[in-house]
This record gives sequence, structure tokens and C-alpha cells, in this order.
Amino acid sequence: MKLVRFGAPGAEKPGILDNEGAVRDLSGIIPDLSGEHLAPAALARLRGLDLASLPKAPEGARLGPPVAGTHNFVAIGLNYADHAKETGQEIPAEPILFNKASTSICGPNDDVMYPRNSRHLDWECEIAFVIGARARYVEAKDWANYIAGYCICNDVSERVFQSKRAGQWVKGKSAETFGPIGPWLVTPDEVPDTDNLAMSLDVNGVRKQSGSTSTMIFKIPELLAYVTQFMVLEPGDIITTGTPPGVGTARNPKEFLKAGDVMELKIEGLGTQRQKVVEFKL
Amino acid sequence: MKLVRFGAPGAEKPGILDNEGAVRDLSGIIPDLSGEHLAPAALARLRGLDLASLPKAPEGARLGPPVAGTHNFVAIGLNYADHAKETGQEIPAEPILFNKASTSICGPNDDVMYPRNSRHLDWECEIAFVIGARARYVEAKDWANYIAGYCICNDVSERVFQSKRAGQWVKGKSAETFGPIGPWLVTPDEVPDTDNLAMSLDVNGVRKQSGSTSTMIFKIPELLAYVTQFMVLEPGDIITTGTPPGVGTARNPKEFLKAGDVMELKIEGLGTQRQKVVEFKL
Repeated sequence: MKLVRFGAPGAEKPGILDNEGAVRDLSGIIPDLSGEHLAPAALARLRGLDLASLPKAPEGARLGPPVAGTHNFVAIGLNYADHAKETGQEIPAEPILFNKASTSICGPNDDVMYPRNSRHLDWECEIAFVIGARARYVEAKDWANYIAGYCICNDVSERVFQSKRAGQWVKGKSAETFGPIGPWLVTPDEVPDTDNLAMSLDVNGVRKQSGSTSTMIFKIPELLAYVTQFMVLEPGDIITTGTPPGVGTARNPKEFLKAGDVMELKIEGLGTQRQKVVEFKL
Repeated sequence: MKLVRFGAPGAEKPGILDNEGAVRDLSGIIPDLSGEHLAPAALARLRGLDLASLPKAPEGARLGPPVAGTHNFVAIGLNYADHAKETGQEIPAEPILFNKASTSICGPNDDVMYPRNSRHLDWECEIAFVIGARARYVEAKDWANYIAGYCICNDVSERVFQSKRAGQWVKGKSAETFGPIGPWLVTPDEVPDTDNLAMSLDVNGVRKQSGSTSTMIFKIPELLAYVTQFMVLEPGDIITTGTPPGVGTARNPKEFLKAGDVMELKIEGLGTQRQKVVEFKL
């Protein structure tokens, strides 16, 4: 299943793609894609629905993030062997974790806004997984009980805020619109091999990132197990798993986004995101 | 006002202390101390209540964290001049931010549990402030529109997880029970001077931390302004503001908590917390 949330920001309804790719309204079936409704067993019940009987969403409705109620938005750093190499850093012995503020989350095609006093905005195309059930000291082999699905995440970053403003990356990862998620929450049955998905990111039609989840150092079940050694995760929490080579800050010369630039992100089986970069506005 | 949440974990009701210090049940007035009910204007309406007309909470009811619905739990590092000195670090030029998982939050007197594979558990007595209204690029002078109140936070830390497990402090700050909050959410009218509050932490009756908010480097309104340059904060979000000298890891020889140890934290006007340390249990 490809699950979505559609409508105006903060007023999204749950939906599901039908066989023609049209969005069907799920709001008569579940209140939202959050909490208990994300449990793998609850999602399995949606599989029996006759989608043709559900109302269609309005044509051209905005897509929001395909999950609601996220408290913990955790990111993994330097998790692609080829990206670690391009930044000149050692391959980490264990996963590097950092946080993005939950308020950075936005829809897959929403504008990405420069924060105030920022000039070093960068892109990171990533595969994220969404937690469907309370996860505490999980074993990697049990991942299917805890993962609701997968989606694209653009881990938008402000490189000066991240690295030159007194420690800890969270400062450069948390501004509003720094977490486009979606377009879809794709359930695991539709992504049988998360370890071999082509991924790419273009800026203004020029390919900047080109990679595959096959070069991930720590794989998704292992990351779930690792993160839950350090914190309890709840339904709706999002873990974004790191980026392949080609980010702006690692290019020579460095490249940063300008207002008007358009990013397009693709991951095989997970759809496409497209964001325009806009200037700061209070 | 001194606001509380009482009852079993996950099923707390909102309450308020009356003139005798007894907890009165607010659940007939507001559903919880979360979201819109934390707005300074909404809290002001509670001031007109005749507390004697409200039912009393059951005698000896457990206190939970006095705020619900926290998404972002942000902490400030090295924010006391005397603590920065004891750890041998420079006074930071600007605040250091890191995150604690929202799932680390617990009641003020709940047991603090060792995480699995941990032996380096430490204490940090802090004053925290709770956000009452969506806060975005706030100016320090406008703090009263955004701060719902203050409480004690024990920023419980696992020092090896924090510093020796591949970067970023969040790993050592996020385990369940690593964020005792409370006992009360004290509204700003009752804490006219947050810059001059005595604070202390004892372990098994022996004074370990002794300080005052007067040695904070960055004060609360300034921290609110600073954090909201990097991320949007929402009602229920908690910012804990750093700790004075005397943490275990900075002592000579270093000291860490053992199962059975009892921590007692006090901040002038904000009450007392008391936690027993217990072994890891799956």
C-alpha cells in the first residue's frame, strides 16, 4: 500500500493510492496515519478495503507528510560508505545519531525556506522508516513488528548552523521545512528489498546525488535495533538513514541552494519529491 | 499556580495545588496540560477558579510529568560558568543545544532505570521552561507570551553513551526515565526572578550539586530567543537549561550512580524531586 495524507497543512486527511494512482480518502476508516493506526496489524486491515468504494480526494490536493504525531525524528550520520569517503571521514564503527526537530517536518512538495541569517542550505536524499509500534530494545530480526513503512526524506541542512555554531548538529537540521517527508508511506510488503534501491537528487534538472541503498553501512533492521538501545521509539517516530555522495558541502567547489532552485528526489519504489527553495519570510 | 498531573503513567489527569498544598482535580475543567491549554492566556483563566469546589485527587497519588504532548525536548549544554570551569571547558560563545528523546520524560519521583549495558549513570539538576504557544523567531523581551511555566528537570545522563559512542550527545541523554520533570509546572507569576534561585542535588543525603541560577551564562528569555532561531517550538515542548557544578563525571575521582541510590533535587520555588536508581529490566 501507498498511504498518504492530503489537504492543507495541519488539516491533512489520511488517504491511499488506488490502482490508477489516484488518492482515495481514508478518513471514514481511520482518523489519521498516527499512533495505533500505524501498527503493522492495523495497516494490514486496510489491505482488505475495496478502494473503489472510497471517495476520491480533490484533484490536485496538496500532499502532507504521510505520517502524523511524530515526536522523535532521528537521523543517522555518515551511513553511506561512499558519502563518508567524499567528506574525508572514517567509516563509523557504529551509527552516528542526531535529531531533527519534529517541527521541521513538511510535505514532500512544500517549499523549503531559508532560515533567517542563513546562506548555506544543502540537500540530502535519504530513505526513512516510520515506527508503527512502541519499540524498546528491539532485535533486528523482529523489525517487521515495528516498521510501518518507508518514505523519502530530504534531510535539508544548514551547514554553518550544523558545524560552526557551537557543537551538536541539531542546530543545522531543525528549521521549519527542513524535513520534507513522502510522498507516500510505502508498506514493507511493497519494498521487499530495502538494500538495493536506486536513489537520486537533482537540482534544477542537474543530477547531484546518485546512489543506491546497497552502499548503506548499517542497514534498516540494524538501525532500528541500534537506536532502540538508546531510546524508546513510539508510533509515528521517523528514522532517516543517511545520504549517498553528492551533497553540496562535499563538492569542489562547495555548492549551496539559492532561492528559486528546485530539488527533485527519487527513490526506487518510494516515488518522487519536488521542492522549490524560497527566501526567509517571518 | 502550581500545576501537576497525577495518576498512573500514561493515564495522568491535570491538577492544581490548593492553598494547603493538596492536589485538586482539574480534569473537569481542562482535558490535560497540553497543547492550547498551556497558552499563557488559557492558564490565566484557571486563576479565577474556586479551588475548594474542585474534587481532591486521591491521597498519595503518583505525580507524572506536569506537561503532556512534548515533541521537542531540548537541552542546553555547559550553561553555568562554574560548571563549564569544572569540566575544563571554555565558556561557550553561544548556547550549545542537544536533544533528549521525548520518551525519556517521566514523573518527578519515578525510579530512574539503568539502560542495558550501562555503568556510567550521572545526575544534572536543572531548571526547565515549558513552551505554552507556538514559538518562532521570538525576541527575548516577548518571553511572557510563550512560556507556560518552570519546573525542575533531572537531565539524567549516561556518560559513556554520551561521549564515547560515535558523536552527538543524544545517545547518552535519551533512555527511558532519563527526564524526570516536575513536581509542578509553576507559572511565571510565582517565579518573579528566575535568575536567582538556589538549587541543589543530593545523592543518599550527601550534597553533590549546590548552585544558583545566578551563574547561568545564557538566561531563560535569551535561550528561548536563541533556540527559536533554529527551530519552531510548540506548546508542551521543554527546554532544560543546563546544570551547576557537582556532576559525577566532573568529580575527582569520578562518581556514578548505583542501583539503590536516591537522588533528591531542589530548586527554590519549584519544589523537590526524589528518584531511586534501579537496575535495568527488559
